[in-house]
Formats: sequence, C-alpha cells, structure tokens
Amino acid sequence: MTYSLEAGGKRIRPALVMTVSEAIQGSSETRGAALPVACAVEYIHTYSLIHDDLPAMDNDDYRRGKLTNHKVFGEAMAILAGDALLTHAFSLIPRSVRQGVPIDAALAIVEDLSTLAGASGMVGGQVADMLGEQGLTTVEQLEYIHLHKTSDLVVFSVRSGARIGGATEFQLEQLTLYARNIGLAFQIQDDILDLIGDESKLGKKTNSDVNQQKVTYPYLVGMEESKAIVDRLTEEAKSAVRRAELANPSLLLQIADYLVQRDH
Amino acid sequence: MTYSLEAGGKRIRPALVMTVSEAIQGSSETRGAALPVACAVEYIHTYSLIHDDLPAMDNDDYRRGKLTNHKVFGEAMAILAGDALLTHAFSLIPRSVRQGVPIDAALAIVEDLSTLAGASGMVGGQVADMLGEQGLTTVEQLEYIHLHKTSDLVVFSVRSGARIGGATEFQLEQLTLYARNIGLAFQIQDDILDLIGDESKLGKKTNSDVNQQKVTYPYLVGMEESKAIVDRLTEEAKSAVRRAELANPSLLLQIADYLVQRDH
Repeated sequence: MTYSLEAGGKRIRPALVMTVSEAIQGSSETRGAALPVACAVEYIHTYSLIHDDLPAMDNDDYRRGKLTNHKVFGEAMAILAGDALLTHAFSLIPRSVRQGVPIDAALAIVEDLSTLAGASGMVGGQVADMLGEQGLTTVEQLEYIHLHKTSDLVVFSVRSGARIGGATEFQLEQLTLYARNIGLAFQIQDDILDLIGDESKLGKKTNSDVNQQKVTYPYLVGMEESKAIVDRLTEEAKSAVRRAELANPSLLLQIADYLVQRDH
Repeated sequence: MTYSLEAGGKRIRPALVMTVSEAIQGSSETRGAALPVACAVEYIHTYSLIHDDLPAMDNDDYRRGKLTNHKVFGEAMAILAGDALLTHAFSLIPRSVRQGVPIDAALAIVEDLSTLAGASGMVGGQVADMLGEQGLTTVEQLEYIHLHKTSDLVVFSVRSGARIGGATEFQLEQLTLYARNIGLAFQIQDDILDLIGDESKLGKKTNSDVNQQKVTYPYLVGMEESKAIVDRLTEEAKSAVRRAELANPSLLLQIADYLVQRDH
C-alpha cells in the first residue's frame, strides 16, 4: 500500500479537495478538515492504478518510472493492497468529522465516493474500457469511458471540497460542471500527449496508445479537433467557476489552464 | 456482481445484522432500517469470495456448486466486480439513514466497516493467510488468520445491528465478544467439517485442506481438542449475550448453537 501511495504522481485530486474547500470562503481555515478526504481520494486513485496495471487488466510493468505493484509484490498482494486501499479510504471520511467537517456533509461525501468510484462511476468506466478495447467506433463511447474512468473521481474531489467549504447548492452544481469538464479535458490531453509529448517529461513512452491499438480522441476526430475540444471544455469549466462566485476562484482557474498547458 | 450475489450461501452475516438489531429492543421495528446495512455486509462478503477465488489467490473453479466468477466472466471482470461490490457496499450505509438509522450511528458503521473489512481486518487476514500458506506452525498464527479473515466481518455485522437497535456501550462490548467467538468457532467448525463432513451436504469436496496442505485447527491441535475449542467459544459467546440483557436474546443463542451443530 505504501509503495504505491509513495510512487509519486501529480496529486491533482487531493489538491482539488483542498483548493475547492479553500476557494469557497477564501480562507485556509478548512485545510485540516479537508486533509483526510484529500487523502481518501488519493487512496482510491492509487488502488485503481494498482488494479488497472494487473496482468489480467492492462498488464503494465512500469508506472511513473517505477515497477508496478504486482511486479514487486506479486499479483495476490497487489490485488489485496488495492482492496485494502479502497476500503481504508472510507475510514478517512468519519475521521474528517473530528477535524470539523459537519456530520451530514461527511455522510454525503461517503455517498458521493461510493457512487462516483463504483459500478456507475470509475469502475464502470474501467469495465467499459476493458470490454470496448479496440472495438470502439464512436466519440460517445470514448467520452463515456473518459467521463467515468477519469472525470468521476475529479468530480468527487471537487464536490467533497465544496461540501467541506460549505458551498451552496448552486455552487455545488457549478463546481460539479467544472470538475466534469476539466476531468474530460485532462484525459483528452493525455491522449494528445501520448502522440506529441516528450518521453523524458512524461516519464513513459509515447505512442503507447498507437502501439496498443487504443482508440483515442486524436484517432477518432483528429489532432486539431481534439485540441479544440480541450480548449472548449477548459473555457466551459472556467465559466462555471466564475458563475459560482467563489470568494477566491483564482487557483481553480489556474488549475484548469495548467491541465491543458502541461507537457507531462 | 449479480451472478455472485445470487449464488446462494447461508447469509449468516446479514441475518446477524437483522437479528441483533431486533434482539436489543425485542421488536421488529428496526427491520427496514437494518436492511441496507445487512445488504452491505453481504456485498463485502461476496466481493471477498470473488477475489479469494482468483487464479492469483486460491485459484478455485467452483464456489457453492457454481462456477466461480472469473471462470464465467474472466479475471478482469471478476476483479472489477469485486471492486464494485466493495465500493457499492458503502453507498448502502447513507441509504440506511433514510430508513431511520441515526446519522451518527451510520457514520460509526462506515468507520467500523472500513476498519473491520480492511488492512487491519478482513484483508489483513487474507494477506496473512496467503503469506503463511504451508508455513504456519502455531495456533496463534492460525487464530490471527481466522479472527481477521472471518470473525471481523461477523463482528461488523453484530456491531452494526447493535448500533441500529440502539445498544448501550456495555451491550455493544458484550455483543462484540459474542461475534468474535462465534466467528472463530464457525471457522474452526469449517476446518472440522472439511475432514469429517458429508460432501453432498457441504456442496464441496472434503479433505480439500489436507490435499492443499493447508494448516488447520485439527492438524495443529487434533480433532478432539478442536471440537472442545468450538464448544468453549460457543459457551463464551452465549454467556456474553446473556450478560448483555437484551430484550429478546433467544435467536442469538440459537445462532451460536446452529453454527456448531451445522453439517454444512
């Protein structure tokens, strides 16, 4: 569990929990309350990577430049490390109540996590990805996979940050829209970087999607249209943040831009 | 997910959630409130069986007389079905609040489940079982595995039933002791039945532990001593229930006896 948690990564999901909770009221007072939930979402993300890398799934030997969990500890321990990380994530949410998160917000966060990370969310996206491999033909199918496999956990991060920060229902709605769009843009940008990125910056080989015959946005709609979609999603995400009238929206606007301007 | 949930089984864990919640006050009023949590624990139990049966783990082809999940749907789908069942279990707990479970009890149930089903609970027991295969030499090591792999989820079932029924702290303590002991007795009885049970009633081959060179209670302490331990644990469990002074303890006492008198 520790090996994979400490393998690095951009930590975008926990950063979003922290940033959104602070953006609502424009103060850093919620930082302690947001931390357990920020950890929870990174636990979930990490478990999903361990299981995705398994021989029965994507069969990857490397992740973030390090050997994958099952290459170091074996398949059985990798499956169990994933199961334990997933289970442990939920124990962090009651803990957030002792850091000041209202009890009804904590329970709503449990419900959001189990919905957005489960069969109708992240796991559902992975199922569609596995079942659809090489058989995808439409942008709608690919969008479904990206929305669930990637956006749903971003949506969870943003929504729980919003709940911890005491967002209104309208703010929660707008921030959900923000999260959906940056999550989708992030994943399409991943498809783009796989084709035109710099291997040394990415920490992984480019053209892996082509070599694995994976269907991507650039493959389905072309490189220029893919870039245009990323730009449009980013603008829509930023508009949603502006409509939410947060006390301090600037970091959320910067994150939206960072995700599309990043080179790794 | 549905295939494995509907594959049958004794449903002891959900029955305990329902029965304990009703035993506290001696009425069936809590039945609706207990149902979502009763389902949650069966989801967790089912996911653990799916993952335990995987080729990387126990590599079993049959479970309860039916093909195991991965034999029907493949390894990737079996891993994901397990992940989704585990995740979905947690969504049922907030739902119980809408059925009348107090919100603080629901959050305590989330915390219990994540602790008792996770790295320090059920998954920890499975890890010890996998790592210790054929290398176990002491009863203490085997007790650790049984307590976590089996008792912890029984403890969860009983504790959540107790919380839903409005148990006092003392009742919660005594019922936890009851659950620990019947869980351990149940597992030792499983070891015994594997040696002297009737294959047609068990729905699986006997002597599988011997053939797989699994270390069991009968192997370590002998058949007579194993039976004596089961009897002692059962008596201790029943004493704990009596001390708890529940409005209607009779079903819990019967369940303790059933688990050791059963022939399958």
